[in-house]
Amino acid sequence: MKIKIGIFDSGIGGLTVAARIFELLPQVDVVYFGDTARYPYGPRSSKVVQKLSYQNTRFLLSKKVDFIVVACNTASAFALDHLKRKFNTPMLGVIEPGAKTAVRYTKNKRVGVIGTVGTIASKSYSKAIRKLDKNIRVFSRACPLLVALAEEGYINKKATTMIVQEYLKPLVRKRIDTLILACTHYPLLKGVIARVMGSKVKLIDSAEEIAFELKRCLRAKRVTARSNERGTHAFFVSDVPEKFVQVGERFLGRKIRRVQRIEIDRY
Amino acid sequence: MKIKIGIFDSGIGGLTVAARIFELLPQVDVVYFGDTARYPYGPRSSKVVQKLSYQNTRFLLSKKVDFIVVACNTASAFALDHLKRKFNTPMLGVIEPGAKTAVRYTKNKRVGVIGTVGTIASKSYSKAIRKLDKNIRVFSRACPLLVALAEEGYINKKATTMIVQEYLKPLVRKRIDTLILACTHYPLLKGVIARVMGSKVKLIDSAEEIAFELKRCLRAKRVTARSNERGTHAFFVSDVPEKFVQVGERFLGRKIRRVQRIEIDRY
Repeated sequence: MKIKIGIFDSGIGGLTVAARIFELLPQVDVVYFGDTARYPYGPRSSKVVQKLSYQNTRFLLSKKVDFIVVACNTASAFALDHLKRKFNTPMLGVIEPGAKTAVRYTKNKRVGVIGTVGTIASKSYSKAIRKLDKNIRVFSRACPLLVALAEEGYINKKATTMIVQEYLKPLVRKRIDTLILACTHYPLLKGVIARVMGSKVKLIDSAEEIAFELKRCLRAKRVTARSNERGTHAFFVSDVPEKFVQVGERFLGRKIRRVQRIEIDRY
Repeated sequence: MKIKIGIFDSGIGGLTVAARIFELLPQVDVVYFGDTARYPYGPRSSKVVQKLSYQNTRFLLSKKVDFIVVACNTASAFALDHLKRKFNTPMLGVIEPGAKTAVRYTKNKRVGVIGTVGTIASKSYSKAIRKLDKNIRVFSRACPLLVALAEEGYINKKATTMIVQEYLKPLVRKRIDTLILACTHYPLLKGVIARVMGSKVKLIDSAEEIAFELKRCLRAKRVTARSNERGTHAFFVSDVPEKFVQVGERFLGRKIRRVQRIEIDRY
């Protein structure tokens, strides 16, 4: 049985998720939608994020996908439950896989979470972690400037290190041993974040964890693609494709072909 | 005759324009719309900015405004001509007033422009300036991180100074004597920008210039409000009002009352 996965994200950040899915599940067909006309979702309210996510899901379903991956942390935090109530298609968000892995890794039961204003305000990670282990203490911090820095490629700069230091100082002080990078843009700043946190703190990349979880889900549902066939990858965006292609190739780590602009408001 | 001005902006930046208009024209009624569900406009394409600006204008016209001020530089650059073709209501954008003032100020005929990726790519300021004086050389630079820094209140920070220095270094080298702050967020970083450019460089704040121009326009049209009456000010946004009120008061320099959320997609 041929399976088709739909992934949506506020823009290009979710390509870090797509990259891991392409690696782990090379046989499946993937339709990726990046909402580049309306990104970023991080500073928006739950009401607006739910509406945008609803339209994105309707678009992916119009492409006949069998499974939906909500690659954006803010959308997973604010809209996943809402979407599950509205649609029957199986769905996976980034929060539970990241939370599970953090629970598995932490030894001192002190976990940090960094993300957008929306993701942190939703307390989704704290709730997911404490549902698994009530004894874990979760320390969260919104880092609103990191998305812009990652997106502009402002990576190996002293200013970026200073901003990361200021954001992470309180978490270092709390002696966490595990830090969830709860935004798909942050893996691009993994080097700086690792240097600031020190080598003893394990960094959890939500992009990796959701790809593993997706593989488990498909296996559990006995959905496996024929292993000798390579899946097709199609990309859709809501603004013109140029910047998506240019910046996106840095996120995806390979060439992006077949990108098409759609009018997302119509869905 | 009672006059009502409609102002729209991608979000809160245009409040620096509203503040100047309230000061200079205390008698006029003002309806402000901040497109907080879809900001920022800076990185979006002209196609998308035109569509958003069209909806914003339709909303303001539904409020029976007599005059429209496009307070956002990116929207002025990409959409003002488009809007003028679609609507009969008189309109004013931020670009011409800023360009005019720069032409008046420069002595060595070397003018700098800093703005969003969209505003700079449009070359609108260069064109407007060179239409007024062909001998002026215009040096432009997109500074995409400055909006996020201003919005997050990351003002008096060393990291911000370093980023501003890196952006402005090429303009300092070009020995400009006038610099247009072609984004409504930049006045919040005026202190840092002034320190980096040095005291000999005149900074032009597009918010101030458009307010003066509006006053001249209204006078030319013989539209003057009765001077003993104070105008009313109403604010509308497309996302929930909380953040707009909180951050906006820093931009406006006074309390914001009467903010209402609307569904901008319906216009």
